[in-house]
Amino acid sequence: MDTRGTRGTHYLLLSGGLDSATLAAWLVKKHGADAVRAVTFLYGQKHAVELEAARDIAEFYHLTCHEVVEIPPIRGSALTDADIPLPTHRDLCVAEGVAPSYVPARNLLFLAYLASIVDARGPATLWLGVHHDEHTGYPDCRPEFVVAADQAVRLGTQYELRVEAPFVLMRKEDVIRWGLEHGVPYELTHSCYRGLSPACGVCDTCQARLAAFAAVGAPDPRSYAERR
Amino acid sequence: MDTRGTRGTHYLLLSGGLDSATLAAWLVKKHGADAVRAVTFLYGQKHAVELEAARDIAEFYHLTCHEVVEIPPIRGSALTDADIPLPTHRDLCVAEGVAPSYVPARNLLFLAYLASIVDARGPATLWLGVHHDEHTGYPDCRPEFVVAADQAVRLGTQYELRVEAPFVLMRKEDVIRWGLEHGVPYELTHSCYRGLSPACGVCDTCQARLAAFAAVGAPDPRSYAERR
Repeated sequence: MDTRGTRGTHYLLLSGGLDSATLAAWLVKKHGADAVRAVTFLYGQKHAVELEAARDIAEFYHLTCHEVVEIPPIRGSALTDADIPLPTHRDLCVAEGVAPSYVPARNLLFLAYLASIVDARGPATLWLGVHHDEHTGYPDCRPEFVVAADQAVRLGTQYELRVEAPFVLMRKEDVIRWGLEHGVPYELTHSCYRGLSPACGVCDTCQARLAAFAAVGAPDPRSYAERR
Repeated sequence: MDTRGTRGTHYLLLSGGLDSATLAAWLVKKHGADAVRAVTFLYGQKHAVELEAARDIAEFYHLTCHEVVEIPPIRGSALTDADIPLPTHRDLCVAEGVAPSYVPARNLLFLAYLASIVDARGPATLWLGVHHDEHTGYPDCRPEFVVAADQAVRLGTQYELRVEAPFVLMRKEDVIRWGLEHGVPYELTHSCYRGLSPACGVCDTCQARLAAFAAVGAPDPRSYAERR
């Protein structure tokens, strides 16, 4: 995994989902819990319940701190707008282009926001848990975006902050495989876009998660209302 | 001036200051007032009075609309923190590195916010009024930042939004010279970091503005409490 330019404090964008929880484990293994700070954004998401999962993960890994930042809601996405229905996996398989669950410029906004907070403090690296399976439907999860965002954040800040996304070329099942080998507590993570517990098992992210666990040949420790 | 890739609606980051007012004139001349929308951010700045100037400029040019977006305050700058004094031009002349009036990652944050709003609507170009004289003290006003931000915004959005900053290689006096030739109502603009009217004439931006008008050989139509 690429570690070019990482320095200073490590800030993890921690959603409470499976990928960023695995990245928490990866960062703690690499840099130690004392060097890692987590930040969770509330941006009007329907599944704001993921914040509780983020808190549990930050606590599990004894991260230095966990900041919660509430920003004005981002509109124009199935994840935030009441009148845009949440997609199912079937919807996505037949769809072309950007997913209904794409949130306009969300990753750029999170990185910019985090940069504006962190650049007042000192050198830092901002860590993003995007992975390969999101490349099709989410432009802000692609490797070329990560490279461009790293440049923009570095050049636009006084401490030349960096952006890293070590899972960007890994499939979700490979992220999970690494996580299972390293004891990531997936029972604490929350993925369901409907914000339900037990998870709905029907929405896009529930099905992607179940499929990835199945590909690894391991049981998903979360409870589901329905498994298709 | 470079016009590569500009398309869709034109969104202008309008602070109410001299540079973005001139960019309003430039955009209206090039694309017509109907194609230009202005956005002003409130980010905890001490000189929030500039919002009134932005409103006056948007009205003067009959722009399609003027949106005001309030975001959580950005900390760590003389422009926002009560305990960091506003710099004078003298302070800046002897200082090295980033200016005390640099606001951490402000331009990236504004562009990302604007992208998150606009990318829900359709193709657009985001316009930024930075210029050459800000290159030393403000990393997020340099040409390399503008290029990187354009890439990050383009790659991180569904409509491949673009960023343009046509004054980025022009000196402030050249911006003013162009503006005076095209009737920009500089009496409506606000620059003073202290938020005073008449302007203080002492803070960094008042002195930079007065010096630029002097270099052009034209009077600054704003009133000043003091002219050094």
